[in-house]
Amino acid sequence: MSVTGPNGFIASGIACGIKASGDPDLALVASANGPVSAAAVFTTNRAAAAPVQLSRQHLLATQGMVRAVILNSGCANAATGPEGLLASRRTCEELAQVLGGEPEEMLVCSTGLIGIPLELDKIILKVNDLVASAGANREDARRAATAILTTDTHAKEVIIQADGFTVGGMAKGAGMIAPNMATMLVVLTTDAKVSPPQLREALERGVADTFNELIVDGCTSTNDTVVILASGTAGTVDSAAFAEAVADACAALALLLAEDAEGTTRVASIHVTGASNIADAKRAGRQVALSLLVKTSLFGSDPYWGRIVSELGASGSEFDIDRVMIAYGGVVVCRNGVEIDHDSKAVRDHMQLSHVEITCDLGLGDAESTILTTDLGHGYIDENMRTS
Amino acid sequence: MSVTGPNGFIASGIACGIKASGDPDLALVASANGPVSAAAVFTTNRAAAAPVQLSRQHLLATQGMVRAVILNSGCANAATGPEGLLASRRTCEELAQVLGGEPEEMLVCSTGLIGIPLELDKIILKVNDLVASAGANREDARRAATAILTTDTHAKEVIIQADGFTVGGMAKGAGMIAPNMATMLVVLTTDAKVSPPQLREALERGVADTFNELIVDGCTSTNDTVVILASGTAGTVDSAAFAEAVADACAALALLLAEDAEGTTRVASIHVTGASNIADAKRAGRQVALSLLVKTSLFGSDPYWGRIVSELGASGSEFDIDRVMIAYGGVVVCRNGVEIDHDSKAVRDHMQLSHVEITCDLGLGDAESTILTTDLGHGYIDENMRTS
Repeated sequence: MSVTGPNGFIASGIACGIKASGDPDLALVASANGPVSAAAVFTTNRAAAAPVQLSRQHLLATQGMVRAVILNSGCANAATGPEGLLASRRTCEELAQVLGGEPEEMLVCSTGLIGIPLELDKIILKVNDLVASAGANREDARRAATAILTTDTHAKEVIIQADGFTVGGMAKGAGMIAPNMATMLVVLTTDAKVSPPQLREALERGVADTFNELIVDGCTSTNDTVVILASGTAGTVDSAAFAEAVADACAALALLLAEDAEGTTRVASIHVTGASNIADAKRAGRQVALSLLVKTSLFGSDPYWGRIVSELGASGSEFDIDRVMIAYGGVVVCRNGVEIDHDSKAVRDHMQLSHVEITCDLGLGDAESTILTTDLGHGYIDENMRTS
Repeated sequence: MSVTGPNGFIASGIACGIKASGDPDLALVASANGPVSAAAVFTTNRAAAAPVQLSRQHLLATQGMVRAVILNSGCANAATGPEGLLASRRTCEELAQVLGGEPEEMLVCSTGLIGIPLELDKIILKVNDLVASAGANREDARRAATAILTTDTHAKEVIIQADGFTVGGMAKGAGMIAPNMATMLVVLTTDAKVSPPQLREALERGVADTFNELIVDGCTSTNDTVVILASGTAGTVDSAAFAEAVADACAALALLLAEDAEGTTRVASIHVTGASNIADAKRAGRQVALSLLVKTSLFGSDPYWGRIVSELGASGSEFDIDRVMIAYGGVVVCRNGVEIDHDSKAVRDHMQLSHVEITCDLGLGDAESTILTTDLGHGYIDENMRTS
């Protein structure tokens, strides 16, 4: 169901020929009834792709009143110069022509290879089919969620039924995932009646603790975009409940992204507790989550806590090795900086799970943070060593 | 020859049983004639190992007049608490007893697994043999260089013959190598007559552009140490010539470390030019050099320049994609942020080399930097996924 779960939205996904495989590569999520409230969060990469640049402009120009999002996979339309920007613009113009409305009311997203020209003609030829085949059924949402995939192994959808309103969403992204967004495209929809500024606030809060606390390989992509559209058909809602539902949808999709990350066999939650302040907690967690040595240990199911202590010490956060505690799955293996007697079988068993929990208590204060990371194994290498 | 190349030094390397394999794991580099000028650079990791903590103290206590460096491999003596510090101290005391001199005149280094208690007894029992077997021959230096290895595949030695003096050195380190030091131990010797403060200045300058501009996996170890000892037998020297010789020795050892990094099949020099300032040049180069996607591309011999542009944009350095130029082995593939016609066969051939040159011109200013990185392939995973 996902993006068509909330009332007022239609979706579609078809093949337009950008992917050599012939797999679906063009998707649409659109309001069924004219412009709706919208908000988005984009990559912080200064090499932001053409669709990111254009969508930013369109959101500003319309003050967050948008009709549709069109997304292609197979080509990022990044590092493509003025031609690339023109291609994104032409895509929006064509969609406006077919769907009705102004080009500025259209957002556009692309994902795939960087530095390759977007084959605009292939998209233009199929916009009619894309719109004609759009619908509000579960299958339509699934088709959209499928058409945005790149190296993902399956479609990623979520639906949150809240009190009086619904939030639905789809996501893609399997690599190049760092804190502060990733090569990830996410479209959320809701039937709640929320103004663009409120929508933006809820989205930013939702992204902060979910997509921005997920690390696959530490690479911040040129194309990351999270968009939310609100049809308003369910009427006004409690703003706290709404923010919570958006955050829940983001968290569910972030976990799906982590579990399907390129070559991943295991996901780990890194909980940092006892930090002096929240910035230190996050910095320490990220250092551990990004560590190639920690990630290869996760791949090997090896509870090598010394690598974690080393990363905490290298993070730049306040750190006193004599106070640090490390636990795997709740079993404390290191206290006051040295290994203690522990149930090593329980730890080994925990390290075999598909989702591992690692707690690092710095023993300095009350601040804490949690970050999601993945292991690093042969699959990631195989997936990324060659593009062709 | 390496550390015994300069007059006034003896060296040794033996097996003391810390390594289960029975391979050599205890090394000595000592002055043949009492205390000599010394300087060292240590890890910035706040979880610095016991030997790092103690060697820092000893250098301060003696104002840089040192007799010897004792090094063990197989155990890092890091995250080992007060017991670990005592073990390092006892090692220095025993060496002072056997070699003559004060414990504070001894420096100590360890490398190997973190969080495992150091088997002090094994070292203590062998200090006599270590000192008794020390000599000034080429083979003695080689034995020392061999006894400090961990996952390295071969000993790493260098000798620089300068005008009137000599600098020799040995190094170990194959993984966990980041800018700002690494799990790397380096001992340099020279016969130049140089005071401890001058020695320190030359060493810091030498390290800055070599070991600190080498990335394997971005992990900053708990044990990194670069030590230099100066016997003075060659008399006073030109300070610029001396600094240059030290930097040359560091550069040669850094390249040896890169080439022998865990699982590495290829080394790349990332040259960033045209940056607004030196900090931006270094930041951009490090982002590229650390990128898992760039590193896996190197493993796959894939000149995927889009990933490099993306990392430059994500680095936080001033960046304008419309000005960027990327070249592989001198062949420009991207100019003004878009791909240009180029000799793709020449690029493909270059990417097959064991040492690849990548230039990123930001087109903004005159600042530049160079950093050495390695590819990321299956070998690194296999080497690090399990410790036992």
